[in-house]
Amino acid sequence: VKGLFVPVILGTARPGRRSEAVAQHVVDVIKRRDASTQLIDVADFGLVATATPGRGLDLAVYQEMMEDADGVVVVAPEYNHGYPGELKLLLDIESHSYRRKPVGIVSVSSGLLGGARMAEQLRLVTGALGMVTVTPSVHVTNVADATEGDGDLFPPSLQAVLETMLGEVEWYAARLRGGETPPS
Amino acid sequence: VKGLFVPVILGTARPGRRSEAVAQHVVDVIKRRDASTQLIDVADFGLVATATPGRGLDLAVYQEMMEDADGVVVVAPEYNHGYPGELKLLLDIESHSYRRKPVGIVSVSSGLLGGARMAEQLRLVTGALGMVTVTPSVHVTNVADATEGDGDLFPPSLQAVLETMLGEVEWYAARLRGGETPPS
Amino acid sequence: VKGLFVPVILGTARPGRRSEAVAQHVVDVIKRRDASTQLIDVADFGLVATATPGRGLDLAVYQEMMEDADGVVVVAPEYNHGYPGELKLLLDIESHSYRRKPVGIVSVSSGLLGGARMAEQLRLVTGALGMVTVTPSVHVTNVADATEGDGDLFPPSLQAVLETMLGEVEWYAARLRGGETPPS
Amino acid sequence: VKGLFVPVILGTARPGRRSEAVAQHVVDVIKRRDASTQLIDVADFGLVATATPGRGLDLAVYQEMMEDADGVVVVAPEYNHGYPGELKLLLDIESHSYRRKPVGIVSVSSGLLGGARMAEQLRLVTGALGMVTVTPSVHVTNVADATEGDGDLFPPSLQAVLETMLGEVEWYAARLRGGETPPS
Repeated sequence: VKGLFVPVILGTARPGRRSEAVAQHVVDVIKRRDASTQLIDVADFGLVATATPGRGLDLAVYQEMMEDADGVVVVAPEYNHGYPGELKLLLDIESHSYRRKPVGIVSVSSGLLGGARMAEQLRLVTGALGMVTVTPSVHVTNVADATEGDGDLFPPSLQAVLETMLGEVEWYAARLRGGETPPS
Repeated sequence: VKGLFVPVILGTARPGRRSEAVAQHVVDVIKRRDASTQLIDVADFGLVATATPGRGLDLAVYQEMMEDADGVVVVAPEYNHGYPGELKLLLDIESHSYRRKPVGIVSVSSGLLGGARMAEQLRLVTGALGMVTVTPSVHVTNVADATEGDGDLFPPSLQAVLETMLGEVEWYAARLRGGETPPS
Repeated sequence: VKGLFVPVILGTARPGRRSEAVAQHVVDVIKRRDASTQLIDVADFGLVATATPGRGLDLAVYQEMMEDADGVVVVAPEYNHGYPGELKLLLDIESHSYRRKPVGIVSVSSGLLGGARMAEQLRLVTGALGMVTVTPSVHVTNVADATEGDGDLFPPSLQAVLETMLGEVEWYAARLRGGETPPS
Repeated sequence: VKGLFVPVILGTARPGRRSEAVAQHVVDVIKRRDASTQLIDVADFGLVATATPGRGLDLAVYQEMMEDADGVVVVAPEYNHGYPGELKLLLDIESHSYRRKPVGIVSVSSGLLGGARMAEQLRLVTGALGMVTVTPSVHVTNVADATEGDGDLFPPSLQAVLETMLGEVEWYAARLRGGETPPS
């Protein structure tokens, strides 16, 4: 439709990405439909996900740690009901060593809902990674108050949930260890 | 439990992040429970989401484009049932200009399911951003075959879905434009 | 594997259901793998979703109301992170009249998270139905306390969210009315 | 807003439901805002989820079977991106015996995407129930063709996924059995 501006976001920066051809096709179709458009390529913005630029650990360090892990806990805030992009970047660089290992989720939010929606999306990702996501999750609410001095980051009831969750991770870790070679 | 190694992933790199205190607490509790652990900080890995390091567009360019947009189309592959981290990084840097604008999703996959699961997670994010996510989504399957020459990226049936989806984006864009000032 | 009992739940009761053949095949394969199994058919339990058996309204009443509606609000509790089955049964009996109508979600919970996870799942369903799910949702927490006398069902801050959400439903309803015939 | 009709759906039929007070409040607020409204109560429609009214098994039969199960497979179609209401009704009547048991999902669809979106929603529910949802899911596409004679319900590649998925259910079932009493 004439007069409308409908840009197309290309949402991957991976070398060899195939979505680029798809995005280019969509741009062409929008033009043919007489709207104006533009390709917005996430790879163009040099997005760097780091608060401590000095460190620059090798990703192999992460992969070794996942290899060694018996279980994992992920702590992350909720942004717009989803997980932070930098968390997803990190999770996606590894694929094999997650399998059949338990994972517990701690979601963090400045609001009242404690990031519960992020935890659900993340649970689908950890499931896809082959992990066993334990049922209890820990949802930290009002984190701004607690970290700015007044509140209590882990009041007793939340601390109890945390311990239960860690207990589940440990229970599964002990049961599933050596899981790659099922008993004959 | 003794003998278990349960690392904690801190899943945000934002300056001022409050999840760090939460993650540190979880590390302490795991140690107290007699398992071994370690903090894995996503900020330590210098994750850079870009295939074209030279460009380095300013993020203000993106924000202006979203400001100007009447509607948006997002094209992205599915990784582990979720959206790419770099897409989320980009979406999260803006908040106001998305509101009441239509968005269409094109998901891409090398498999048979066309990234439909990613599209669902992304739909929750675009909903949180205040956008109207149009109902038809476009799911591109077997993208590797198509881009490597043999297949057809958009066979007629998929092209028809794409046109329908763009028609919906345009229909909502025309209706909702000027949406920030509701009629009195 | 010998000694394991792995029943198969057939999760639809619709006349003409095709999942029955799939479930039967899965039962056969499990038997061939030497585990024991049994088909559990949801249709066998005569599940009736009603607390007021006397009324028995015709479903056409619902369909007419959806036809007439300019927008809809859904109020529902969260059970096991999802929506109640009876709500889904009702939503699924209609398909055309939802299209391009705004919907607001009010989720209810006896816990602290106010059914936010249910709201996310429901949002994907209302999206599939062709509705525009407005961004603000209302999450009622601790409902047991409030309805048993002591608490306040809608304290001022929650009441404000409710009004904002209804304002959005009304705004979209006014804009989108007559949506079935896009302007030429 | 005057002239708008915004009905409120009360989405639960459970005896003792507390969402009724919430829905009533929403109805009152909509009226006060000068729109017209009406309460649509799912309990009023006598929704019966059964294709075989004669059988009428006792729900205790289901609960005993879940108690006995070492693992479970759920076969269900996708309706509007979600699970069938009758499946949710059945799952929700039991709570304790699911815990730490593996479950595999077989989703069924007449379309090309094989119900993958339903499988994701269901995975969040089975997670909430305390089950271990194995990573591979089975997605049956084009089921109408296959059951009406021409197609093959389980072509070799899909049959292989089914066997892998069942193998995972069995692997976890063998490992987790007796899971209620963790080793000291």
